[in-house]
Amino acid sequence: MRELELIDGLEVILSSSDARVVRWLGDDASVVRAGGYAVTSVDTMVDGVHFHSSQLSPEQIGHRALAGALSDLAAMAARPGQAYIALGLPPGCTRPDATALVAGAQALAARTGTTIAGGDVTRADALVVSVTVIGWSEDPGELVGRDGARPGDLVGVTGTLGAGGAGLALLEGRASADGLGGPVATELRRRFACPEPRLAHGRDLASAGARAMIDLSDGLATDAAHLARRSGARIELTLGSLPLADGVAEVAAQVGVDPFEFAATAGEDYELCACLPAAAAQNPQTGRAGASWTWVGRVVEGAAGVVFTDSGVDLAGYEHAV
Amino acid sequence: MRELELIDGLEVILSSSDARVVRWLGDDASVVRAGGYAVTSVDTMVDGVHFHSSQLSPEQIGHRALAGALSDLAAMAARPGQAYIALGLPPGCTRPDATALVAGAQALAARTGTTIAGGDVTRADALVVSVTVIGWSEDPGELVGRDGARPGDLVGVTGTLGAGGAGLALLEGRASADGLGGPVATELRRRFACPEPRLAHGRDLASAGARAMIDLSDGLATDAAHLARRSGARIELTLGSLPLADGVAEVAAQVGVDPFEFAATAGEDYELCACLPAAAAQNPQTGRAGASWTWVGRVVEGAAGVVFTDSGVDLAGYEHAV
Repeated sequence: MRELELIDGLEVILSSSDARVVRWLGDDASVVRAGGYAVTSVDTMVDGVHFHSSQLSPEQIGHRALAGALSDLAAMAARPGQAYIALGLPPGCTRPDATALVAGAQALAARTGTTIAGGDVTRADALVVSVTVIGWSEDPGELVGRDGARPGDLVGVTGTLGAGGAGLALLEGRASADGLGGPVATELRRRFACPEPRLAHGRDLASAGARAMIDLSDGLATDAAHLARRSGARIELTLGSLPLADGVAEVAAQVGVDPFEFAATAGEDYELCACLPAAAAQNPQTGRAGASWTWVGRVVEGAAGVVFTDSGVDLAGYEHAV
Repeated sequence: MRELELIDGLEVILSSSDARVVRWLGDDASVVRAGGYAVTSVDTMVDGVHFHSSQLSPEQIGHRALAGALSDLAAMAARPGQAYIALGLPPGCTRPDATALVAGAQALAARTGTTIAGGDVTRADALVVSVTVIGWSEDPGELVGRDGARPGDLVGVTGTLGAGGAGLALLEGRASADGLGGPVATELRRRFACPEPRLAHGRDLASAGARAMIDLSDGLATDAAHLARRSGARIELTLGSLPLADGVAEVAAQVGVDPFEFAATAGEDYELCACLPAAAAQNPQTGRAGASWTWVGRVVEGAAGVVFTDSGVDLAGYEHAV
């Protein structure tokens, strides 16, 4: 496959009505009119590490790679602007495969107001998709980092947990769809294959007063520990309060893990976890943007770290693929 | 290797005195105060495709990956701001290797006024380094694309050509350093391993009136064809006018290629090629920023494309690894 021909093909798929974009594909670099502050994140997904290309369609791989990067912007409460996709294509990858992958990303980009404004195509041993996303914010005070959690804050999560990990277990054959019901199994697999970055919900949580926020790609146990560490705060969570997605209990039973532990550690959910002052607990914005909102714990005085008050297991020590 | 430990190690290496940077490593995304326009490029280098890790030190690999991305900013005449490094690390890669790689990039970053403000670390089958660079410009009119070449323009290149390709031939054992002289061979290998992005020269060329510019990572024959295609212009080059680096003639003879053809097609040089109005030919800025400047051709009326007027070979059809 010749790079230039592929890039020509991609220009047909990609379209931009983004008035910020002065130059994009086909130049040495894109040129984009900036807002006040650029919010930038990079997320890389590698075949065999973060997904298996035999289990996902090219469109799903493209969606998932962009969703992972956009989820970081959601966790900052930033509005997405542009995305840049660096593709490493292995020998067996055809031009239709690569085009479909970018088309999958483009569908999510269009829906979230993101412009795919450039990238890079190279050969590689395995399929690698590295996505850089840039969001814009007029006021950095409206963005939410990981370091603002304070004792007295309440901790909550968007949506339901465990679905991404359960979907992966189904795709990998570690669990069976028997007894789940077809629609439930399909939804779990979709939650892994096509996670939805919680962009609007992230901004709503910021408006409601969120002081620290992170997305749950590694699972609540690991990701809440990042919040605790960066904030120098102790986070107490109640394992039994986690909102389980439909079918997670059944899949967890099949893989021999407590369902709440599974939801806290399996990762792949791309929901948000945020810490808000207790006074914000009644703010209707915490739960309004398309996903539910569940309070799962609080920030307390003490050594930085995460404890599940109703579990004796050190779930935060769970080690993830990097 | 645990991602978090590695990232902690990298925070020690990386340092920023960049007042633009509000948040960087350790959050979901960096937050950077923007200039008027963001100029963004992504460049990926894969072990076994763009380099061989057995032939370069980790520091050189890091330098080269950042240099490749910065070279795109040089070709736009943009001033670099931040870089984001996505590392895919294979099983055998140690933490000192990864740290040294980032240290190599950091040394170049510090020297060019670039802040490494974030990135990503994942497992991969082979070493993959994907670098996103963002530069800033108050006025997009000061930036130079690929599409502005017009009949009557003169075409020139910075520095000397063929050195990167000759250095690679030496590293790969396709050519021998015998008869070259030790310092010449060392310099050729250095030109491949640690190319210098022509950032200051690119801005000088823009000031001197450059209307189209590109960096020569694929070689003049291929890259001038990009200028011709994007500008809808015909570019006539004189093969015999290309400025050969010391030792290129000897290496080209060893690999059985005409030295000027080698310089036009071997790539890996990261010099700049620019088209300027004939009136700019006397502007001293074309050659002042540390590298020499050589006129090698002109833009003429006719079908878009590149011809070497003193060669019967279709050098622009040369196919590069992507």
